[in-house]
Amino acid sequence: MRRLPDLRSDRLLLEKFPPRSKSKEEIVWVSQPFPSGQAAIPPEIVATTLRFGGGLESGFDAPEPLPNTCAMEFQPERLAQQVRFIVEVDRLKEIFRQTVLVNSRRRENDAEHSWHLCLIVLTLAEHANWPQLDVLRVLKMLIIHDLVEIDAGDTFAYDTAGMANQHERESVAADRIFGMLPADQTREFRALWDEFEARGTPESKFAAAVDRFQPMLLNCRTEGAAWQNHGVTRDRVIARNSHIAEGSAELWAYAERMVAEAVAAGHLQDA
Amino acid sequence: MRRLPDLRSDRLLLEKFPPRSKSKEEIVWVSQPFPSGQAAIPPEIVATTLRFGGGLESGFDAPEPLPNTCAMEFQPERLAQQVRFIVEVDRLKEIFRQTVLVNSRRRENDAEHSWHLCLIVLTLAEHANWPQLDVLRVLKMLIIHDLVEIDAGDTFAYDTAGMANQHERESVAADRIFGMLPADQTREFRALWDEFEARGTPESKFAAAVDRFQPMLLNCRTEGAAWQNHGVTRDRVIARNSHIAEGSAELWAYAERMVAEAVAAGHLQDA
Repeated sequence: MRRLPDLRSDRLLLEKFPPRSKSKEEIVWVSQPFPSGQAAIPPEIVATTLRFGGGLESGFDAPEPLPNTCAMEFQPERLAQQVRFIVEVDRLKEIFRQTVLVNSRRRENDAEHSWHLCLIVLTLAEHANWPQLDVLRVLKMLIIHDLVEIDAGDTFAYDTAGMANQHERESVAADRIFGMLPADQTREFRALWDEFEARGTPESKFAAAVDRFQPMLLNCRTEGAAWQNHGVTRDRVIARNSHIAEGSAELWAYAERMVAEAVAAGHLQDA
Repeated sequence: MRRLPDLRSDRLLLEKFPPRSKSKEEIVWVSQPFPSGQAAIPPEIVATTLRFGGGLESGFDAPEPLPNTCAMEFQPERLAQQVRFIVEVDRLKEIFRQTVLVNSRRRENDAEHSWHLCLIVLTLAEHANWPQLDVLRVLKMLIIHDLVEIDAGDTFAYDTAGMANQHERESVAADRIFGMLPADQTREFRALWDEFEARGTPESKFAAAVDRFQPMLLNCRTEGAAWQNHGVTRDRVIARNSHIAEGSAELWAYAERMVAEAVAAGHLQDA
């Protein structure tokens, strides 16, 4: 038996949602788990009942729920756990990459990089190799794809030594960071990250294409700053980024033109 | 009559996609507009035909397309225009807000703020007032919602003078910035921004709730830094942010608790 959270101890919540009913039975009913994993009553009704059903007795014993209970049950501890995760990932704004910004030329951080990828998806999704793409899943992958770098740090795309154990380091980081979430969301975020890393689906291939296209674009608009700083040559740029074509043949054709122009302009060594 | 782009002038593109056919008729056929706005042939076939159909004669006259033609026609100028937009909005990373980061305590910029909002949506969408929410549209709104600040600058949430003409300034900015995109995307992005600003739909109400919840959270985790810097008091925080409840009653209840704790800890003046 599990104790339901005592909603009455939450003064502010009850000011917003005064108890409408003190019926013990009503609360028992809506918190019943559905073994099939599907709510047998419309979610609107469950949500409304729970949202206004703050009148249960403190410490009332409810049945232990099965893993798939109605998802709309309000659990203050679940929200608090999610907020701790949201505060933790604020650190992504402190992880700096080798790419520099077009105007100020300061190094870009992972959080603003991730935002730029999302914006690029909204703008360029029509150029993916598949006319029907699940854009929401592409965005989800890109929003979370660099969180592992909070622990593992950014690995420069041309850092061969760093790339050797990159996935191993990032996998440990994924365990800790996604593990801060409630278990169902740990699984969901980890599955998105694993899909992104494996590049086996149209969505992950396009997400990875955008993740490589964006730094190439910024390099080309900053006279090859990151390439010059690290002595990166044309052949390595081509080898490292050619998988863009797996996600978007059109973006890769554009990227190849950018590289040719960068070599012609002397911003990238031709080797 | 409109001239189709001369694909043969694009050397690198043709290296990737050598012309398979020089049939003028084939190209005319696939570029025919469909007045209903729906492609009468599967989009995969249109895309493939166009992708390999680079053999049309330079300057061949094609019929003027209706507004809704098949979206998969490859237009190098359209991609180039989209890329100019993507480079322009790199400036969002240089627009700094009053909120400071949890760890380094430097001011946050609009790009990383926008990423954080997306991450919060993925984590907290279950707490929206509506169990069924179009999460993709929420994300789209949040990804583009601050682009207008590239021209209009960030207006601090408690800057009464700045807020007086904020929407007017931002509307002019929206005309210029979204106007850099191809016309169909200008309309799409502008409609998303207008929806966000109007807060009339469940999606925009939840997006706006997250946009207010995140700076409150960062303020509370930095001993009220931005509030202290500007002498903001409790009553103004409540008045400015209470619309969070329109998007998520649960997040607003949580936010009210945070405010009470900040006042108790002396990080926010109680007035």
